[in-house]
Amino acid sequence: MKSLGLVFEDGHLSILDQTRLPLEEIWISINSTTEMVEAIRTLKVRGAPLIGVAAALSLATAAHDGASMHEISVAAKALGQSRPTAVNLHAALDRMLAVCRPNFRPELLLQKAQEIFEEDVRLCDSMGERGAELICDGDHILTHCNAGGLATVGIGTAIGVIRRAHEQKKTIHVFVDETRPLLQGARLTAWELRNLGISHTLICDNMAASIMQKGRIQKVFVGADRIASNGDFANKIGTYGLAVLAHHHGIPFYPVAPRTTIDFNCPSGNQIPIEQRDPAEVRGQSSLRDTQVFNPAFDVTPVDLVTALVLDSGIYTKNELKSGALKRLQDEPQ
Amino acid sequence: MKSLGLVFEDGHLSILDQTRLPLEEIWISINSTTEMVEAIRTLKVRGAPLIGVAAALSLATAAHDGASMHEISVAAKALGQSRPTAVNLHAALDRMLAVCRPNFRPELLLQKAQEIFEEDVRLCDSMGERGAELICDGDHILTHCNAGGLATVGIGTAIGVIRRAHEQKKTIHVFVDETRPLLQGARLTAWELRNLGISHTLICDNMAASIMQKGRIQKVFVGADRIASNGDFANKIGTYGLAVLAHHHGIPFYPVAPRTTIDFNCPSGNQIPIEQRDPAEVRGQSSLRDTQVFNPAFDVTPVDLVTALVLDSGIYTKNELKSGALKRLQDEPQ
Repeated sequence: MKSLGLVFEDGHLSILDQTRLPLEEIWISINSTTEMVEAIRTLKVRGAPLIGVAAALSLATAAHDGASMHEISVAAKALGQSRPTAVNLHAALDRMLAVCRPNFRPELLLQKAQEIFEEDVRLCDSMGERGAELICDGDHILTHCNAGGLATVGIGTAIGVIRRAHEQKKTIHVFVDETRPLLQGARLTAWELRNLGISHTLICDNMAASIMQKGRIQKVFVGADRIASNGDFANKIGTYGLAVLAHHHGIPFYPVAPRTTIDFNCPSGNQIPIEQRDPAEVRGQSSLRDTQVFNPAFDVTPVDLVTALVLDSGIYTKNELKSGALKRLQDEPQ
Repeated sequence: MKSLGLVFEDGHLSILDQTRLPLEEIWISINSTTEMVEAIRTLKVRGAPLIGVAAALSLATAAHDGASMHEISVAAKALGQSRPTAVNLHAALDRMLAVCRPNFRPELLLQKAQEIFEEDVRLCDSMGERGAELICDGDHILTHCNAGGLATVGIGTAIGVIRRAHEQKKTIHVFVDETRPLLQGARLTAWELRNLGISHTLICDNMAASIMQKGRIQKVFVGADRIASNGDFANKIGTYGLAVLAHHHGIPFYPVAPRTTIDFNCPSGNQIPIEQRDPAEVRGQSSLRDTQVFNPAFDVTPVDLVTALVLDSGIYTKNELKSGALKRLQDEPQ
């Protein structure tokens, strides 16, 4: 199994350290679930779908190395607590634990992790195909954070859509929000787009409004970390502001995510837990050490600001979402 | 003459290097107009009102040091071209050149520069008094960039208003946008507010929307670099986005500026020249060298998004601005 940011070979798991990109491409061996917890917590591995797959593979490796059912269960709990907002992580862990019964065979966990991996690749392909239909030749597209190959084990979510449109020979240009405080847009999305040969311009987050005002953005595509059953969704901090700005300028706004991002038990965005991170991420090298900081990693965009949600299973308009499309999806065979 | 960021003593001009704040407080001697051009261009000295005063004092010093009328005129032109957007600079230079006639006495230039300096102090005080009336006890206020003592030679514009409210014992809290790419909010505004003992929280620019969504911001106060006669205004990049967000959330949005910021010859925001700066400011240390970047230093907020403009001469509502209040101001005695 191999993706842009993760390799599992001969029972050995490695991740590309996303905190060092794009200046250095350093692969890190993950030798225990404790190391995986630390890698997720410090964002060496990140992206809602990817951390789900990475956590699953980490549990499978632990099982292969002889961990007991109890140890697997404890490790799953620690992995689940590493980041609170993305729901894919918890969904993947639940699926792993479901095959971790008394006298379980370690191969079952590996099979399940592989299934989760391959499913993510397929889900990305489906989102890409469906979402690309929304992109017109000549579109200028704004994206935020990184919702690409580095955030999944497939072609990505929002970036997967953009990539498919590019492969269909549509002429597009992408404006990339740098995405403070950790610059996933500047460091990761710009790197991916360069490698894909997709024309792009890096901007500071606070420039998006001015570019919209000038009529230079036709569509906004972003990822999602958790989608409530009413269509509200959490994504990287700054997404909600973009949704308001897109609404003000009459620009279509599309979150893109696999079904594993939907939390059917979460009725609305108000119930999504929002991770608060270290103030030092915001202060950086430039601010006084004692400055009080607010550093939420995510915000919540209400379904009212969503033009349509691109899922692997289809494109759901705001009105469809508001009339319960996601709840119905829960009952459908996958 | 002494302000937070500038000292003129015994014919000698020094500036506080604002690019080094808050970690280092380093004063730089300015020994020629060429050095002042460079200091303005590199933002060692910045803030629309302050660069006007600094440029005036720099011309006065040159005159005192024996510069000819022609040399003064050439220097004024270079100073005027150092930054294109803020109009206070050009207004101050015009006033200096008006006293620089054949056989001029150098003292006349110094007197004029001193007049511009003292006027800015008074204008700041007036804005502070008038604007503070808009602030209620308990207000949480959002500000962007630095519109404080470091941007003027007085108490500042937007921060002057906040300071006056604080001195009136109103309990307030300020959310400070860090203001990418050069972090004037994180570096300068947080430093000023700390020194003033005003409670504040530093945020990334992309967090403002989420805080507004939670009802935690009651008012937005920002500075201005150029105000068109219809009430549109240019200010630090990101201001327009805040105005849209404030509008969406029903939060009053107030630019604060002295009359020297009004460009009566500029009919609307479309005519304001917007400075484009070095892509390296956005790329920083984290991005690939060859990434294409868009780096406008300012954006334009249309008068429709302005709740009211706080000038030294009064508070002008959107409707007053739209019905020609600024044009009438031009004809009034000052």
